[in-house]
Formats: sequence, C-alpha cells, structure tokens
Amino acid sequence: MSLPRIAIDAMGGDEGVRVMISGAALARRRHEQFKFLLVGDEARIKAALAEHPGMAGASEILHCEDVVGGEERPTQALRRAKTTSMGLAINAVKTGDCGAAVSAGNTGALMAMSKLALRTMPGIDRPALAALIPSLGDNDVVMLDLGANTECDARNLVQFAIMGAAYSRIVTGKDAPRVRLLNIGTEDIKGTGDIQDAAALLREATGLSMQFEGFVEADKISRGEVDVVVTDGFSGNIALKAIEGSARFVTDLLKNAFASSLRSKIGFLVSRPATELLKHHLDPNNHNGGVFLGLNGVVVKSHGSANMQGVANAVEVTARLLEEDLTDRIVADLAELGEDRLRDNGAAAK
Amino acid sequence: MSLPRIAIDAMGGDEGVRVMISGAALARRRHEQFKFLLVGDEARIKAALAEHPGMAGASEILHCEDVVGGEERPTQALRRAKTTSMGLAINAVKTGDCGAAVSAGNTGALMAMSKLALRTMPGIDRPALAALIPSLGDNDVVMLDLGANTECDARNLVQFAIMGAAYSRIVTGKDAPRVRLLNIGTEDIKGTGDIQDAAALLREATGLSMQFEGFVEADKISRGEVDVVVTDGFSGNIALKAIEGSARFVTDLLKNAFASSLRSKIGFLVSRPATELLKHHLDPNNHNGGVFLGLNGVVVKSHGSANMQGVANAVEVTARLLEEDLTDRIVADLAELGEDRLRDNGAAAK
Repeated sequence: MSLPRIAIDAMGGDEGVRVMISGAALARRRHEQFKFLLVGDEARIKAALAEHPGMAGASEILHCEDVVGGEERPTQALRRAKTTSMGLAINAVKTGDCGAAVSAGNTGALMAMSKLALRTMPGIDRPALAALIPSLGDNDVVMLDLGANTECDARNLVQFAIMGAAYSRIVTGKDAPRVRLLNIGTEDIKGTGDIQDAAALLREATGLSMQFEGFVEADKISRGEVDVVVTDGFSGNIALKAIEGSARFVTDLLKNAFASSLRSKIGFLVSRPATELLKHHLDPNNHNGGVFLGLNGVVVKSHGSANMQGVANAVEVTARLLEEDLTDRIVADLAELGEDRLRDNGAAAK
Repeated sequence: MSLPRIAIDAMGGDEGVRVMISGAALARRRHEQFKFLLVGDEARIKAALAEHPGMAGASEILHCEDVVGGEERPTQALRRAKTTSMGLAINAVKTGDCGAAVSAGNTGALMAMSKLALRTMPGIDRPALAALIPSLGDNDVVMLDLGANTECDARNLVQFAIMGAAYSRIVTGKDAPRVRLLNIGTEDIKGTGDIQDAAALLREATGLSMQFEGFVEADKISRGEVDVVVTDGFSGNIALKAIEGSARFVTDLLKNAFASSLRSKIGFLVSRPATELLKHHLDPNNHNGGVFLGLNGVVVKSHGSANMQGVANAVEVTARLLEEDLTDRIVADLAELGEDRLRDNGAAAK
C-alpha cells in the first residue's frame, strides 16, 4: 500500500521555510516512499528545495502568500483558512489530496482550523493535543490533553485515555499500554469529581487495548512506570511546561556550576560525552511532534523552534500514524467501550 | 521582645524522633532564644535529647502515645486531635502556650486539624499551603496553593495572592514582591473564568504591598522573574511535583551518563565541586518548610523525608514568621484591598 502524501505548512515556525523543507527532505532520505505537498511562498520554497535534489520528484508546491502569525488569535486566523499556508495544508487533508498535515505554526490557530475543517471523529466530543515526554523507561510517555481543552469532564477524559492508548500502541509497539489519570494523589478520594468518575468508568471497562492503572502524580510521569498520562488541557499544559522549565533550570544550574572554576571546566571537558548524552536525551527535537487526536485526519504540530532534525522527527511520526491507521484504532476501541454506555454512565456520574 | 516558643510534633515524618529533635537543636544552636514544646513519646524524646545538652533548659516535653499515620485519612485523624502528637502540638498554638507548630507528618491531616483548631483568619475564606521553590534569581519563589484546595474561585485566588505576598516580603525582604497567577498562556483570554476574574481584581486593586504582573506559565516559575506564583491547589500540586520529578529525572540521567564510561567517571570526579553545588541547590532540605497561610496561628509542614538540616530550616522559617508577624501583615493588606469590595466584585464576576 502506498503512503498518502503529507502536506507541509512551509511557512510556520520560528525557524522559517528552510528548516521545514530541510526537515522534510531529511525524513525522505530515510524513507524514500514519502511524498509531500509543500504549502507557502513558491519562490522561498524553491530556493530551499535547490539544496535537496532528491525532493524534486517527491514534492509539489502549493503557492500562497498569506501566513498565520505566531501571536494571532485563533478566531482571527480562522477567517483566513482559505488563504494561509496553514489553512491550505489542512484543507488538503480535508479534500483527501493529502493524508496528513504538519505545521510548526501557532498551536491555537492550528487546533481551531483543524477542528473546523476536519471535524471530530464519530464518538469523540473534543479533540486533544498529545505529545511525547522523555522518560527513564524504554519509551517516551504519551501525555494528553496539553492545552486544547481548558476544562474537561469525565467523558472527555475517558475519550482522551482511548485516544492516547491508541497513539501509544503505535509509538511503543505495546498491545496494552499502561494508562493513568494525572492526579494530586493516588488514593481513590483524591482529585475532582470528574477525575474520580473517569477512573470509575475506565476501571469498569473491559476489552480495551490498555491497562488502566489508576492515578499518577506529576513527579512520577518520567519514571518509566506509565505509558499514557491523561489529564485536562489546563493541568496538562502546566505539567508539560513545569517539566520543560525544571529540566532547563537544572541544566542551566549545571552550566553555571561547570563554569565556576578552572577545575570544573576541565571536569566538564573530560566528561563531555556524558553531558552530550544528557543533552541528546533532553533535546526536544528528539521528541518532536505534538499530535491532534480525535479528528477525521492526522494533524501534527512540530515545535515552533524545532531544528531540521526536529522537523524530520515530526514528519516521521506523521508517517507512522498514517501507516498504522491511528483513526481506525480509536474507532475500534470506542466501539469496544460502547459509546452509549459511556454517554449513560458519564451523565449519571455528573 | 521575646519569641514565643514553638511546638514540635516529634513523632511525624519518615525519619523519626531523632531527626526532629536534632533539627530543632541545630536551629537553636544558631538562635539561642528559641524555646520548644516537644510533643510525643517521652522516652524516645529524652533519648534523642541526651545528645543535645543545650536543649535541656530550652525545651519542655508533652508526653503522648498516639501518632497520626502517614496514610491516614484526614477525617479519621481529626477524631484523635486530643490524643495525637500532631493534634496536641496544634492545640498548644490554639491555647496560646506556643506561637507556632512544626510537623513533618501527614499533610492532609495537619491541614484539617489546623483548620479546625485555629480557624481561618478574618477576611480569609480558605487557608492555603505555600512552599519555597528554588530559582535562578536571588531568592526562592513562594508558590501557593499546593494542594489544600482542589478547586478555587477568583476570590480565593486573590486572597492567596495577598497571603503569598506577605510571606514573600518576610522571606525576600522586598517591599513589593512580584506576583503572578499561574496560567497556560500570558494573554488576557487564557485560562478559566476564575483566573481571569482574579487577574482583573488584582489589576484594579491599589495600595497592596505587591506588584501584580499578570500571568506566568509553568516553565517560567524558576527563571527568577517572579516572587510569588498563585494558583489553585490542584494545578499547584501538579506544578510542584512536575518540577521535583523533572529535576530528579535530569539528575538521574546525569548520574547514569557519568557512570557510562571510565572517562565520564574521571570527569565526574574532577568536576565534583560543580555537581556538589548543583546538589546543594536542588536539595529540598535547603528549601524546607511548607507554610499554612490564612490561619489564626502559624503551622509549618516540614518535608516527611527531611534530614536534620531540613528540619532546622523549617524551624528557622517558623521563627521568622513569628518575629515578622505574618498574620498582622495579611490583615493589613486585606484591609487595604477592602474586604467588602472583594466580596462584591468576586460575586459580580461569577
């Protein structure tokens, strides 16, 4: 089966057209079946393509001049869905011209445009943004929602669990990923009513392709004991940014400490392989690709400041989601849970 | 003015009586005016005191046999407020025998018992748990609430801001600490209605001893750009634990990396002063002492796994709060804001 082509919003991101095109080209050097629709300013895309002769037969350019700004409000961006590179990339997924879209642009605008153009899947009330978090375990942890939905009820959280598990199965290859709800304690009585209700629903469910293991506290996300962390968009965003900020805080402290004396500087030079390993493990470019789950189509958000390697990773994640048919997996699990049952229990639990 | 004595729950914490007594004794060696009421098993306290002759004239023992368990539900612990070391330590504050209580025991039970015995201050609806977070700046950051209140409205958040600023003034010596509300973005439209309402109230208020500077995202908590971070107990607990977990993740990775080759091991040995500096900065014992704000009396939670140094820090924080009269400062700022005004606006904003 041939892989559907991937629409690349060439204009989004802080690093510009060159990084988006180079990233796509790098991914293609590793997977020669990849094909692209490159959306954005034709002259700049052509200039970037000149460095990648292998891309000539594998990509088509869709020219447009309008670009969604990084600080633009989603509602404002929505009005230019037909003229911007982001809007046109998503539209190519809607029409079936492409299988998926990748953008490094404004996350809120990307979510709003994707939702409006692609609509949520049958059985899903709200899409969610999922990302991969590094861990001490064998694989990255899937965490969702990361900011698409500020407030969520039990029903939303159960749907996020199903979507996150489907994504984790593709990323980790596990048949039944370990799923937990983010909470402020592991006892049954902890957290909001919605979290407790979601836990009850997931505990009772049978036949799902996951192991639901209750609650996880935020200091245990990266210990390698969980594959999927489910939460509302507010807490998820707080947790993700706290993790990023704290990792940067520690590495900044380390840098200052190593610069504090000649002896430390020498130690740093000698141990460079170790600190490079650390840097590699923490580099967000190695875990790049936030995925919008729950839409009729695959949309991947590459980090705004991702480098060529980061964009290539986002493109490769996108291709795997297409190959493994993420959407079908979610539909199958929703059927297993019994959508009506979820609706009834969710309503009763309110 | 002589300092009121401090009640020490000698039985709480994972490390036992010896650590609590040694910690108090260490604090007393630095500040000889400190006096204590040591609450718990007399024989074990006496055994621990034997190593600290200086404590003889500075401490009295209040014997009891009952102890609140680490996993006990707060409601269950409440029934034994009159028999447990934690309950009796708090009661000594209520009767005026002591100025403050320090415990390393069960946080939920400590909060519930303190609230019931000491009641909230006039003008404060709910007490909050505040702690100090290390930062790249000149001083630690005060963050609250950290888990006492799972859900909070605008009015609660404004009160937390006032209490956090009063605590920060004592810790940092600044006249007007920089206060921000934790949110998932810095634009006005971000977050829940309660957060937006709280921001509006704080922006309009004049005469408060703080600079209110809007929102802060969780990755900026430790950058040194803010003195007080205000949030509900759910998000605060998530943020605090995510920060702790991520710092431990990075240091674990670093340890693994340094152990990965002989060269790295040598580098580690040479740069030990640098890594020790890092360890010192991240050691929770150096930032120990969660404070319950908003009660008629000072109650400080020492970390359950704190060592002697950590307990000493918690005792010293307690003494500073007594010396600087935290409670009076909060009352003065509430008067400045106009308690009725807060009530009216808070209600109107709902």
